[in-house]
Amino acid sequence: MLARGTRVLAAVSGGADSTALAWLLAELDARKIVTLAGLAHLNHQLRGDAADRDEDFCRALAARVGVPFECEREDVGAEARTLGVSVEVAARGARYAFLARAADKQSAVCVATGHTLDDQAETVLLRLLRGAGNRGHSGIRPVRETVIRPLIDCRRTELRDYLAHRGETFREDASNADVAIPRNRVRHELLPVIERMAPGGLAALARSASLAADDEDFLEAAAIIAASDVVLVDGDGVQLNVAALARLAPAIARRVIRGAIERVSGSEVGRLTAAHIEAVRNLDAGHLDLAGVRIDRVGERLKVQGTKMVGLKAELQ
Amino acid sequence: MLARGTRVLAAVSGGADSTALAWLLAELDARKIVTLAGLAHLNHQLRGDAADRDEDFCRALAARVGVPFECEREDVGAEARTLGVSVEVAARGARYAFLARAADKQSAVCVATGHTLDDQAETVLLRLLRGAGNRGHSGIRPVRETVIRPLIDCRRTELRDYLAHRGETFREDASNADVAIPRNRVRHELLPVIERMAPGGLAALARSASLAADDEDFLEAAAIIAASDVVLVDGDGVQLNVAALARLAPAIARRVIRGAIERVSGSEVGRLTAAHIEAVRNLDAGHLDLAGVRIDRVGERLKVQGTKMVGLKAELQ
Repeated sequence: MLARGTRVLAAVSGGADSTALAWLLAELDARKIVTLAGLAHLNHQLRGDAADRDEDFCRALAARVGVPFECEREDVGAEARTLGVSVEVAARGARYAFLARAADKQSAVCVATGHTLDDQAETVLLRLLRGAGNRGHSGIRPVRETVIRPLIDCRRTELRDYLAHRGETFREDASNADVAIPRNRVRHELLPVIERMAPGGLAALARSASLAADDEDFLEAAAIIAASDVVLVDGDGVQLNVAALARLAPAIARRVIRGAIERVSGSEVGRLTAAHIEAVRNLDAGHLDLAGVRIDRVGERLKVQGTKMVGLKAELQ
Repeated sequence: MLARGTRVLAAVSGGADSTALAWLLAELDARKIVTLAGLAHLNHQLRGDAADRDEDFCRALAARVGVPFECEREDVGAEARTLGVSVEVAARGARYAFLARAADKQSAVCVATGHTLDDQAETVLLRLLRGAGNRGHSGIRPVRETVIRPLIDCRRTELRDYLAHRGETFREDASNADVAIPRNRVRHELLPVIERMAPGGLAALARSASLAADDEDFLEAAAIIAASDVVLVDGDGVQLNVAALARLAPAIARRVIRGAIERVSGSEVGRLTAAHIEAVRNLDAGHLDLAGVRIDRVGERLKVQGTKMVGLKAELQ
């Protein structure tokens, strides 16, 4: 995951996991295994005073570790409203865009995040309980482009033990206790039952996710190849050949449709669910409006267009 | 799943699900939609008196429904010891072999089982918590060769309500309460938490399984095509070309290995886990003994042989 001597930036929130990440990378830096280029923190301005105290904590942490601190503030709530997406989606987009800028400024070749085995198990369960299929089953990728998750095989409790052992503190995120958030219900209600029922079950789920990720890579590659017979770029949008789509295995047809929609909507697409994809597969007539995309059945074609572009064109006319 | 007029045999245990199945198929028969060819029950001789009372209940049920009754007794415990597999694996093998014979005797073209959405969710969770990957995620197939599961989208509670509405009884299987059995822990401890936490979560999990099944079909087909470059039939066993195997995507390489082992071991293979497959992928030297199969690394080949055959050959020499 980390070649010897790599310059890595650590993303920190102030929570236990990413605080442990910062100290662990600092240890590897001291042993000349990697170079810790700095800590990076995005203040999402979502939790008022608490968010500012998280920022202060992270700034102080960087000073104690002895590395540069990259920080930005972004009104993620406003961003979510502007884009018409959930706060979670807007926050993720803003965070990774910020991390790429911060890595650039510190000449880091990759960004490490503090995702743990617990995060992996939560993510997989959350997505499967929403009917997400193999893509959901794949969970969090240990390496995705320039983002790495070196703690993905570590338990959250191990990291807290490590911090306690070092005598280091961290910030408790009050929103982690909010059981109105589905992820927190999985964390606080489901995970403990699994742990009690099937010791090792969460680690097995994480291994299952890693197999699913390899499956997904193969299926995605097959879909990209298959798309050349199905997808036709058409100005701002794309067209899908219905007959060619019907000849594909269902597993591949679904991924070709997803790819076409994501191509048109870019990162603006909110949560494109398996049910949306099935609706597109079964669109015999008329049109569908998904998050940011409109799909029209026109004869033996499915026309996929971004609704922002459609709106923009209407304004210009 | 059931073409109009199909002759179908119903597999019954005496429990609520399969009792409801029998009555539902009898209703479809009365409305001339399908033909219920009979009820079939295998007495596994695993629970003494209770097993005999289950058999009696099923015989009486067939008489009340007014269809033929097919029944056999088999000492599944002894069978499991002979084969060196778990009682669960031996019971499944014995049951499906019996059902095929029974369908044949009653000229039924398919066998219906009482698997429900609850069974599907249990199966998927159980397998994922063992790290089973997409194959586990696929769960129970609604249609597999001549076996169909018409209740796979029904909740267990719906079927009990249906029986109560009809005034019909069923047998409670005492072993369903035994929380030493992992499936029962999933049923009694995990499912209720999911239901409370995420209403609709079990149905979503079942939808996810159905997507995974389509993915698995595609991946299996790709592995069968890929196998022609990797697998060489060698007398009683097979050989795998290590270099050719290494060129495959991991998703496909794993399935080629599984296919080779299953080809050699036939139905004798017990529980071939993802960890076994990884061990074969990483076998640099020496050999591995899996359930019923021995794998030797010989130069740039992996030789896969059934240990029963190896034993038999030694005896003959």
